[in-house]
Amino acid sequence: MKIHDWATGPYPARVRIAIAEKNLRPRVTFVSVNLRKGEHKKPEFLAKNYSGTLPVLELEDGTFIGECTAITEYLDALDGAPVLTGRTPREKGVIHMMNKRAELELLDAISVYFHHATPGLGPEVEIYQNAEWGLRQRDKAVRGMHYFDGILKQQPFVAGEAFSMADIAVIGGLIFADLLKLPVPAECEALRAWYARMQERPSVKNRVTMSEPADASA
Amino acid sequence: MKIHDWATGPYPARVRIAIAEKNLRPRVTFVSVNLRKGEHKKPEFLAKNYSGTLPVLELEDGTFIGECTAITEYLDALDGAPVLTGRTPREKGVIHMMNKRAELELLDAISVYFHHATPGLGPEVEIYQNAEWGLRQRDKAVRGMHYFDGILKQQPFVAGEAFSMADIAVIGGLIFADLLKLPVPAECEALRAWYARMQERPSVKNRVTMSEPADASA
Ligand SMILES: N[C@@H](CCC(=O)N[C@@H](CS)C(=O)NCC(=O)O)C(=O)O
Ligand SMILES: N[C@@H](CCC(=O)N[C@@H](CS)C(=O)NCC(=O)O)C(=O)O
Repeated sequence: MKIHDWATGPYPARVRIAIAEKNLRPRVTFVSVNLRKGEHKKPEFLAKNYSGTLPVLELEDGTFIGECTAITEYLDALDGAPVLTGRTPREKGVIHMMNKRAELELLDAISVYFHHATPGLGPEVEIYQNAEWGLRQRDKAVRGMHYFDGILKQQPFVAGEAFSMADIAVIGGLIFADLLKLPVPAECEALRAWYARMQERPSVKNRVTMSEPADASA
Repeated sequence: MKIHDWATGPYPARVRIAIAEKNLRPRVTFVSVNLRKGEHKKPEFLAKNYSGTLPVLELEDGTFIGECTAITEYLDALDGAPVLTGRTPREKGVIHMMNKRAELELLDAISVYFHHATPGLGPEVEIYQNAEWGLRQRDKAVRGMHYFDGILKQQPFVAGEAFSMADIAVIGGLIFADLLKLPVPAECEALRAWYARMQERPSVKNRVTMSEPADASA
């Protein structure tokens, strides 16, 4: 299978982490799409993903699957042993809720802030901006950090006792916050400690270089 | 289990349809939360769902699960025979992609339009509005209708050959559009024909009355 993405992007990071956690790296080829040149808004790319975002998974049969959550569902189900998306109904429900909440309250909010209240991907790509909305989304994301801090005070992982897709979504949010120099408030100690632990995971640590050709890392 | 919702809401409709499709009505008690009075923004409710939205599923063990997609994952997994969220990796991936796309490009866009560029739930609830953003989201939703029309020209259901959670999300979008008198463009013939078929399904037709006490319908 192919992954169309951009090595340093926060959403691509979610799928790269999932690939590493599932030991699927040998089965994946990466195709780089240049976000700064707006390649993701060109008709060729929009035919692969109507929403014009990365990453996109391309299957051998020509099917394109966009959306990090959908790609993660696919990858996690491949070996019939889901570890990222839950096994029981309750696990599935809680993981999907926390994954979506990580998007709504953190990652997607930071993304809107980036595209609307900062130069974003540059004037060629950001043809419409709404700064007031972007700034409100930034403030929402900071509230979201406090929310996840409260969760991580009570339990080791975002959706409970085990690492899951929901942790990956929060990691994506904090990667984006790092890129934009939007700090996690100092008082969010549980969130900061959890993020330090997450950054030790090989899947998180090696995500940007995972697409480099093997000989380049030799 | 309990469902905290509001009988006529477009998001609650998604979970009500899923309950009926899974024949789970006898196992569910409904609790009404008054959106127009802003009950969903009060601390008691925010403790159940941080995001302050309906519906919310409450399990016997006291767990609260918000987010339609998460609730649907839970309900669909209960009998070990998923029919709404996919069986194979490919089905799961495509259904989750189309479900998310229905939210991004249609249902959530209409929701933002409602809350930001119409009176929404009234001045007590809509304490911040951004009309320009709301109107752009309305236009996005109309483009989304054209997108789903194109999909339904090629296949009978939103995610392919079978009814799924993705159809339910598009139905939610068109229920919201109906409420706001935002018409599906006449030229979207495939989408209109599909919606007419969907409205014939008992799960869709009886969704509002499903929470009425049994004696009221006797
Ligand atoms: N809902 C999408 C969002 C993906 C997304 O926004 N990706 C970024 C890359 S980090 C992107 O393509 N941004 C380009 C743009 O929005 O112009 C998902 O979960 O995959
Ligand atoms: N992402 C949520 C959205 C739910 C939602 O927006 N529900 C509406 C009811 S139809 C709501 O609670 N709106 C109240 C508000 O946003 O103030 C989901 O999928 O469940």
